[in-house]
Amino acid sequence: MTAVSIVGGSGYGGGELLRLLLSHPLVEVKQATSRSHLGEYVYQVHPNLRKQAQLKFSDPAMLEPVDVLFLAQPHGQVQHHIDEYAKFATKIIDLSADFRLRDAVVYEQWYGEQHAAPEWLSKFVYGLPELHRSELANANYVSGVGCNAAASNLALLPLVKAGLLDLSYSVIIEIKVGSSESGVEGNIGSHHAERANVIRTFSAFGHRHTAEVIQEMCIPTERLSLTLTAVDLVRGVLATAHAKVRQGVTTKDLWKAYRAIANENPFMRIVKEQRGIYRVPEPKILAGTNYADLGFELDESSGHVVSMCAIDNLMKGAAGSAVQCMNLMMGWEETTGLEFSGLHPI
Amino acid sequence: MTAVSIVGGSGYGGGELLRLLLSHPLVEVKQATSRSHLGEYVYQVHPNLRKQAQLKFSDPAMLEPVDVLFLAQPHGQVQHHIDEYAKFATKIIDLSADFRLRDAVVYEQWYGEQHAAPEWLSKFVYGLPELHRSELANANYVSGVGCNAAASNLALLPLVKAGLLDLSYSVIIEIKVGSSESGVEGNIGSHHAERANVIRTFSAFGHRHTAEVIQEMCIPTERLSLTLTAVDLVRGVLATAHAKVRQGVTTKDLWKAYRAIANENPFMRIVKEQRGIYRVPEPKILAGTNYADLGFELDESSGHVVSMCAIDNLMKGAAGSAVQCMNLMMGWEETTGLEFSGLHPI
Amino acid sequence: MTAVSIVGGSGYGGGELLRLLLSHPLVEVKQATSRSHLGEYVYQVHPNLRKQAQLKFSDPAMLEPVDVLFLAQPHGQVQHHIDEYAKFATKIIDLSADFRLRDAVVYEQWYGEQHAAPEWLSKFVYGLPELHRSELANANYVSGVGCNAAASNLALLPLVKAGLLDLSYSVIIEIKVGSSESGVEGNIGSHHAERANVIRTFSAFGHRHTAEVIQEMCIPTERLSLTLTAVDLVRGVLATAHAKVRQGVTTKDLWKAYRAIANENPFMRIVKEQRGIYRVPEPKILAGTNYADLGFELDESSGHVVSMCAIDNLMKGAAGSAVQCMNLMMGWEETTGLEFSGLHPI
Amino acid sequence: MTAVSIVGGSGYGGGELLRLLLSHPLVEVKQATSRSHLGEYVYQVHPNLRKQAQLKFSDPAMLEPVDVLFLAQPHGQVQHHIDEYAKFATKIIDLSADFRLRDAVVYEQWYGEQHAAPEWLSKFVYGLPELHRSELANANYVSGVGCNAAASNLALLPLVKAGLLDLSYSVIIEIKVGSSESGVEGNIGSHHAERANVIRTFSAFGHRHTAEVIQEMCIPTERLSLTLTAVDLVRGVLATAHAKVRQGVTTKDLWKAYRAIANENPFMRIVKEQRGIYRVPEPKILAGTNYADLGFELDESSGHVVSMCAIDNLMKGAAGSAVQCMNLMMGWEETTGLEFSGLHPI
Repeated sequence: MTAVSIVGGSGYGGGELLRLLLSHPLVEVKQATSRSHLGEYVYQVHPNLRKQAQLKFSDPAMLEPVDVLFLAQPHGQVQHHIDEYAKFATKIIDLSADFRLRDAVVYEQWYGEQHAAPEWLSKFVYGLPELHRSELANANYVSGVGCNAAASNLALLPLVKAGLLDLSYSVIIEIKVGSSESGVEGNIGSHHAERANVIRTFSAFGHRHTAEVIQEMCIPTERLSLTLTAVDLVRGVLATAHAKVRQGVTTKDLWKAYRAIANENPFMRIVKEQRGIYRVPEPKILAGTNYADLGFELDESSGHVVSMCAIDNLMKGAAGSAVQCMNLMMGWEETTGLEFSGLHPI
Repeated sequence: MTAVSIVGGSGYGGGELLRLLLSHPLVEVKQATSRSHLGEYVYQVHPNLRKQAQLKFSDPAMLEPVDVLFLAQPHGQVQHHIDEYAKFATKIIDLSADFRLRDAVVYEQWYGEQHAAPEWLSKFVYGLPELHRSELANANYVSGVGCNAAASNLALLPLVKAGLLDLSYSVIIEIKVGSSESGVEGNIGSHHAERANVIRTFSAFGHRHTAEVIQEMCIPTERLSLTLTAVDLVRGVLATAHAKVRQGVTTKDLWKAYRAIANENPFMRIVKEQRGIYRVPEPKILAGTNYADLGFELDESSGHVVSMCAIDNLMKGAAGSAVQCMNLMMGWEETTGLEFSGLHPI
Repeated sequence: MTAVSIVGGSGYGGGELLRLLLSHPLVEVKQATSRSHLGEYVYQVHPNLRKQAQLKFSDPAMLEPVDVLFLAQPHGQVQHHIDEYAKFATKIIDLSADFRLRDAVVYEQWYGEQHAAPEWLSKFVYGLPELHRSELANANYVSGVGCNAAASNLALLPLVKAGLLDLSYSVIIEIKVGSSESGVEGNIGSHHAERANVIRTFSAFGHRHTAEVIQEMCIPTERLSLTLTAVDLVRGVLATAHAKVRQGVTTKDLWKAYRAIANENPFMRIVKEQRGIYRVPEPKILAGTNYADLGFELDESSGHVVSMCAIDNLMKGAAGSAVQCMNLMMGWEETTGLEFSGLHPI
Repeated sequence: MTAVSIVGGSGYGGGELLRLLLSHPLVEVKQATSRSHLGEYVYQVHPNLRKQAQLKFSDPAMLEPVDVLFLAQPHGQVQHHIDEYAKFATKIIDLSADFRLRDAVVYEQWYGEQHAAPEWLSKFVYGLPELHRSELANANYVSGVGCNAAASNLALLPLVKAGLLDLSYSVIIEIKVGSSESGVEGNIGSHHAERANVIRTFSAFGHRHTAEVIQEMCIPTERLSLTLTAVDLVRGVLATAHAKVRQGVTTKDLWKAYRAIANENPFMRIVKEQRGIYRVPEPKILAGTNYADLGFELDESSGHVVSMCAIDNLMKGAAGSAVQCMNLMMGWEETTGLEFSGLHPI
C-alpha cells in the first residue's frame, strides 16, 4: 500500500479527498491534519465518513513522511512552506492556487501579490489530466485546478485542440456555480436564508480562475472573459462558452472534435440527445463523480458555437482530478478509486 | 369601478392577474374563466386567494361585456377568436404571444405557422410600458410580453437608448430562469425530482422570445442570441447581456444612461453596490413585485459590457406589466395596485 | 400620522417590520436604529426596500420620542433597558423573548438566568391577537411571540377553546422550520452548503418556545413537547400537533370549533380540501402574509387528532403579529397594512 | 458471474437497482425491461449510467432465465404474474408492495382489494435484512420494503428488540419525505413550481406503509400512526418516532440498545453528537448509500422517547436493501456492491 497524507483535511476539498483516498484500493491514509478540529474524528466534520474510518485529525506540526502528500489548504499558504513539505514526500499534489500558473508575473497580476516561491513554479505540472496526461506520468509536483477553470478549459478543449475557433472574436464563458465553491468558511452571502434561491452574478469580470484558462488554452487575455453566477445548488459547475468557429466549420466537424476528446479521456462524455429529460450536460447528476460532461450547439449561419461543460466542482474541479493525477503519477489505472457513477434522481 | 374579466384564469399568469386585480383599488373582477376548473373557487387553484375572494371560475362560453378584458390563454388560441373577444370589451390586453410581433412574416418564421389574424397585428401595442408608455395611453389593444424578452429588452434598454452599443459585434444574452416559466402544465422535465437542483441549458439558440428583442431593440437577427438555462427557483429571470460598447464609452457614460432609465421608470432600479450581500440585481427579492432591477459592469479596456436585468417572470414578465399597461390605458397612476415591495429574506 | 421607530432594524424581524411600517397608511417611520449598519441606507441591508424609502439606519443612542416604539433586538437585551425605552414612547411592542412569560420563575427555568426586570412582566400583554384581542385594545406594553409558539398555540387554539382535548394524554407538536428562524447571524449549520436539503431535528425536547405554549394553552408542562426539525425553506413554520380528543368527539365537532376560530379572526383560515394540490395548510404560500392556516384530521376510532397550523415565521410569527397588535392598540382596523395575499406559485 | 435481470427498469427504483447491479462485482446484468422506453439505452433514462453501460431496455415479453430476477414494477402487477416469473428464476426479489404483508386479509384492509395470489404470501420473506437476516440466507422469494416503513421499523427496532417500550401508550411516527418517493410518474403536486419549498402533510393517517410497521414491530393497529410530510428534497426519509418507554428506563439503557443494533448491522450507525453541525441523523448525507442512521433523545422525567431514523428512500428504502438481500441469499458478503459512503457537502 502506498502511504498518503492530507494537510488541511477539514475543508470541503480535503473532505472529498478523504472520501476518495479512504476507499482507494491502493493507498493507505496515514494522516489528515487540521488545526481547528485537532483530535476530532474525521467523521465528526465529514459525516459521510462515519463507520468508514476511525481516523482523527492530527496536528500539522506532527506530519510524518509518506509516499504522496496532498495539500488542501487555503490559497497563499503552501508557497511559504513548500521547501518543508518537500522533505516529507517525493510526490506532492497541491490543491491550492499557489502553483497553478507557470509565470510569477502573471501570478502577481491576478493574485495581487508577489509569489513567495517563484523558483518552484516550473517544477509543477498543471493537474488536469485531460490536458497533461503524459507529463503527469513523470511528475513529482502537481498543482490542483481551479474548478471554474477546469470546467472552462474542458468546454474549450475540443474546439481548441481541433483548431476550430476563430480567435479574432471574443470567447465569453458564462459559469453557474453551487455554494460549496465558497469553501467551508463561506462569505457574508453564504447564510442559507440569503444564498437559497439565488441567481447572483457575483463576478462579471476578473475572476482569478481566468488566468488558468488563458494559460492552458492560449487565448489572448483581452479575448477571454469569465462571468460567474451563483445558483441554488451545493455541488456543481456548468460552464457555457460562447465563441466563433472559423469560416466553414460545420456541426459535423464539431461532432468529430468532441468525439475525439470523449474517446481519449475516460472521464469525458458527450451529452447531446434529441429526446428525454437529460439532453445536455448537467452538473447535478455528476455529484460525487469525476466526469466532465460536454455538449455543444452550433449556429452554422453565424458561426456562433455554444460549448458546455458540467462538472462537480469538488471532484473533477478539485479532489477527483487530484486523485486521477496521483493514479497517473504512480502508473496506476487512471480511473482507480474514481468509479462512482453518480445518482439519478438527485 | 372599472369592470374587468380574465379569460383563462387557472394558469400561472392568470393566477397572478387575479391576485393583482382582486386587490386593485379601481377595478372590480367580474369573471375569471376556466374550462378545466369550471365551478371551482379560484382559491382552490390559487391557494393564496383564500379569504380574499369568493369568485368561482366561470364558463368561457358565458363571457359578459366588461371595460377591460384580459386574455391569459396558451399561445396560438387568441388569434383565432380575437374578433369575438373584441365584442366584449373596447380594451383588450392579451398576455399570449399572439400579438407581440408586428410582422406576420416574422411571426411565421419564429412560430412555424401562419398567423390567423394578421390584420390585427398593427392594432396592438407591445405591452412593455418602459418602451411604449405614450402609445399605451391611447391604446385599445395591448399585447403581453415574453418574460425572457422583457428581461432582455430592459437589460439592453439603457445601452440602446443612449446609443452606446457597437452593433458590429454580437449581443449574447444568457438567461437563467425559474420553473414557473414552463407554465402550469409543465413538461417532461418538470417533475420536482428531475427539475430540482438543475443547471439545465434547455435552449442554446432559437428561443421564440428572441424575436421580441430583435423587434424592440432593432438588433440585426444575426447579431443577437438568447441562451436559456433553467435553475432551481420557482419565480424569476436574470438576463445577462454581453455586448461591446462603442470606442471611448466609459463607466461614467453607462452610469448616466442607466440613471436616466431608472429615473424615467417607476419600476426600474439600479443595483450596483460596493458592499453588502445584494450588490447586483437578483430575481429572488423581486418575487411578487413589478420591479426590473438593472446592473452593469464595463471592462473599459476591451469595451465588453455586461448588463443585467432581474425580474419576476410572472410580474414584470407577464401579469405585472399587463396591469401597468391597464393603468396607463385608463389614465390612472401607473403604479396603482403594484405597490408590493417584495420580501427579504426569501 | 402616528410616529413610530424601530430599535434594531437590521435583523430579519426588524427588516420585516420596516417593510410593513413603511407601507402602512397610518404611520410614519421616524427612525430605524442599527449599530452595525449605522449610516447605511436601509435598502442596502433589506434590498426589497430600494426605491421604497430613503431612510438610513441611525444610532440607537440618538433615539427620539415617538408614539409607538418597536424593539427588535436579540433576546436578553431589552429587559436591561426597558425603563429607558419607556421614556421614549407610551406604547412599546417588544419582539424579543424578554416579556413573553408572565412569571419570572418560569422565565428563569427556560432561559437559564434571572429576569432583569421582573416587575415589568405583568405590564406586558402577550402579543398574539387571536388570544388577547380585547386586552390589546387597552395595552401600552405588548410582547412579541415566539414563531414556533405562535404556530403551536394557533394549532391548539380551536381544540383548547372548545374544550375538546383529553389532557390526560400528551400533546406532541412536531414543528418544521425554515432557515430565517436562525436569525441574520445564523449558526454553525447555517452555511448554504450545510443547510440546503436538510431534514435536521435540531431540538427533540426543551425548546424555549415551549414555555409560551404551556402558558397560553394551560397545558401541564409534563404533557407537552415541541420537537423542531429544520427543512429546506427560508420562510415558514408548520406545526403539527398530535393529541387526543375527549371520548365521543367527532369530526363534526372539530369543524365547528375550527370554523368558529376562522370566523372570529381575520387572519385565520381553514385549509381542508378534498382535491387539488393545496389540501392542507402550507407555509410556502404564506410568505409575506399575516395568515395562519389551519387544518386537521381526526381518527374517530382512537381519538387521535392531528391539528396543523402554517405561518410565515417573520410575519404572524413576528413582525406581522406585532403590527396587528399596534393596529389594535391604536383602535385601527386590525388588518391595516397587512393585506398582502401571498404568492402562488412560489 | 451470477446472471440477474430487472423487470421494470425505467422507474426510480429500477434505475437505482441498475446502478448497483451494473457495478456489483459478482453479478452480470442480462436484461432490464421497459415497455415505455423499449430500445433506448438505459443511460438515456438514467443519465448517471452513461459510459457505464451500453445496455438497452428490452421487451418484458422477451424475458430470459436468470439466477436472480428483480421485479421493480408498480404495485398491484406482480401478484398477477408471479407464477410466470417463477419460471425464469429460482430466486426472486420483488420491490413492489405485493408480497410484503403475510396476511391476505390485512392486505385487503390496507390496499382495498383482494390479493390475487394469496398462496404465495407465505413463501416470501420481508426484505429488510436488519429484521430477517437469517431467514434471508435460505430464502428464494423476498419482498421489498416500503421506504417509510423501513425508516419507521428501524427507528423502532432498538426499542422493540430490547423491550423498552410501554405499548399501552401510542406510537406516533412523523415522517418527512423527498420527492422521489412519488415515483417517476409523480402526481398532480409533483410539478417543481408546486413541489418546491413545500412542507406539505399529505397523509395524516392511514398510509399503506403503516401495515408493514404493525406487522414487523408487532404494535397494535390502534396504537400506531404514521404521518407523512413532503419537504423540499429529492432523496431521503427521516422518521421521527414518539413513544413512551417503560418506567425506569434510562438514557443509559437506550445507549445499550442502540449500540447493540449498530454493532449487529453493518449499515446501521448511531448519530448522537454533542457538537458540530451533524449531531443527529440526516438523510441528505445518505444519498446513494445503504446506511440507516439512528438517533434518540429521552426525557427521563416523562418517559417520552424520540427515536429517529434517516435513510435514502431509494437505497435502504428500496434498491439498496434489495441488493443486500441478494447478497445474503447468495451467501456473499452482505455489503458487496453497497460500499458507497455518501457525499458531504451535498
